[in-house]
Amino acid sequence: VIELVGLDGDDTLWRNEEWFAEVHQAFHGLLDPYVPAGLDPVGALNEVERRNLELFGYGVKGFTLSMIETAIEVSGGRVSAGEIQRLIELGRTLLARPVELLDGVVETVDALRDAGFRLVIVTKGDLVHQETKVAGSGLADKFDGVEIVSEKDPPTYGRVLSRYGVAAERFVMVGNSVRSDVLPVLAVGARAVHIPSAVTWVHEIADHDGSVPTLASIRELPDWLAGNSPTSR
Amino acid sequence: VIELVGLDGDDTLWRNEEWFAEVHQAFHGLLDPYVPAGLDPVGALNEVERRNLELFGYGVKGFTLSMIETAIEVSGGRVSAGEIQRLIELGRTLLARPVELLDGVVETVDALRDAGFRLVIVTKGDLVHQETKVAGSGLADKFDGVEIVSEKDPPTYGRVLSRYGVAAERFVMVGNSVRSDVLPVLAVGARAVHIPSAVTWVHEIADHDGSVPTLASIRELPDWLAGNSPTSR
Repeated sequence: VIELVGLDGDDTLWRNEEWFAEVHQAFHGLLDPYVPAGLDPVGALNEVERRNLELFGYGVKGFTLSMIETAIEVSGGRVSAGEIQRLIELGRTLLARPVELLDGVVETVDALRDAGFRLVIVTKGDLVHQETKVAGSGLADKFDGVEIVSEKDPPTYGRVLSRYGVAAERFVMVGNSVRSDVLPVLAVGARAVHIPSAVTWVHEIADHDGSVPTLASIRELPDWLAGNSPTSR
Repeated sequence: VIELVGLDGDDTLWRNEEWFAEVHQAFHGLLDPYVPAGLDPVGALNEVERRNLELFGYGVKGFTLSMIETAIEVSGGRVSAGEIQRLIELGRTLLARPVELLDGVVETVDALRDAGFRLVIVTKGDLVHQETKVAGSGLADKFDGVEIVSEKDPPTYGRVLSRYGVAAERFVMVGNSVRSDVLPVLAVGARAVHIPSAVTWVHEIADHDGSVPTLASIRELPDWLAGNSPTSR
């Protein structure tokens, strides 16, 4: 029996990575006049982000600082103050963007509640931005809790289980990132369901061994969980 | 009887605002050649921060983005890419700075534990940076919990009380900011102790009516709480 279902936020409940892809495109266009042929500004940005992750953590503000650093580096300092201001505006657009729920999310969340599961959002990123997204999603009241974490590793999932008083075998995590939503969950002895998203952030790419249940849409989740619900036996 | 003591992090347990004052000075020096006589770049920065607070939240990453925006604005776009890179480095220095506990903190925390109080850190700012500071403080094991929040308002304190299962009249919050550590705590019916710090951030300045207990040093806290501890009766 599953008691608690954890749902990832970005690219599981609501659109996210697509907005970043748009910003990547704008970033590429802005830097194009400054970089030598063959140098991909977005590839350089990915490297700067990787270098900054430990200090900056996840989220739009660190991403924006990394865009600025990359722009200065790849342009050899030739990027203008006005272009840097434009990068800050791109970051601000990401922060201010209204939440767009993915297809089937509301119906699925309602079905899971009706089936008696306790539900928790487990999401990582900037504290204020994630809280804003949860509030903007209109989903908050349907969940038993929201956990905004700095990293999705086994100790983090251990703390979530202990906070909700649930044994590992009674928890399932559902998300689009194998690295964050699947592998660390399996490591603490809980279950995970993978719902791949259209676009996956380069720093989230990982593989599982194929034994992890993989759904094409969140709409398949209630059926997958049928027979595991607290009210089914 | 007090059961749970909340302690603020920045400028209550460890130094913080002094490091920002140093960065303000460097920011002032860097912008000085660009601004008309009589314009204070740090005053302009405070205004940009205020404008950005709702979207960026508290913390060093948002502060760094505000520094960059301010530099571009007050220089009329004349600030160079190299100078903007220098601002990012100033932000990075703040993020990487080792934690320095304030005088008397370790002894006081130990004394409160010995007296039987449950202890919680309640701090706001960037999630990753605050977690890093808690870890670097060496204090984590002495506390029953750490709450990193996006805003210290009455609903936030209400959630802390309910998470720890403590009635408002059995909670006291201790901190340097009247706006964040005192007024919203009184609003939920709990008690607060104000320990003013050497430097207070302009956005945290507020007054209380003089009836709030005010200590010159955290070292006075155990005596102030004597007679209120769970083991004292």
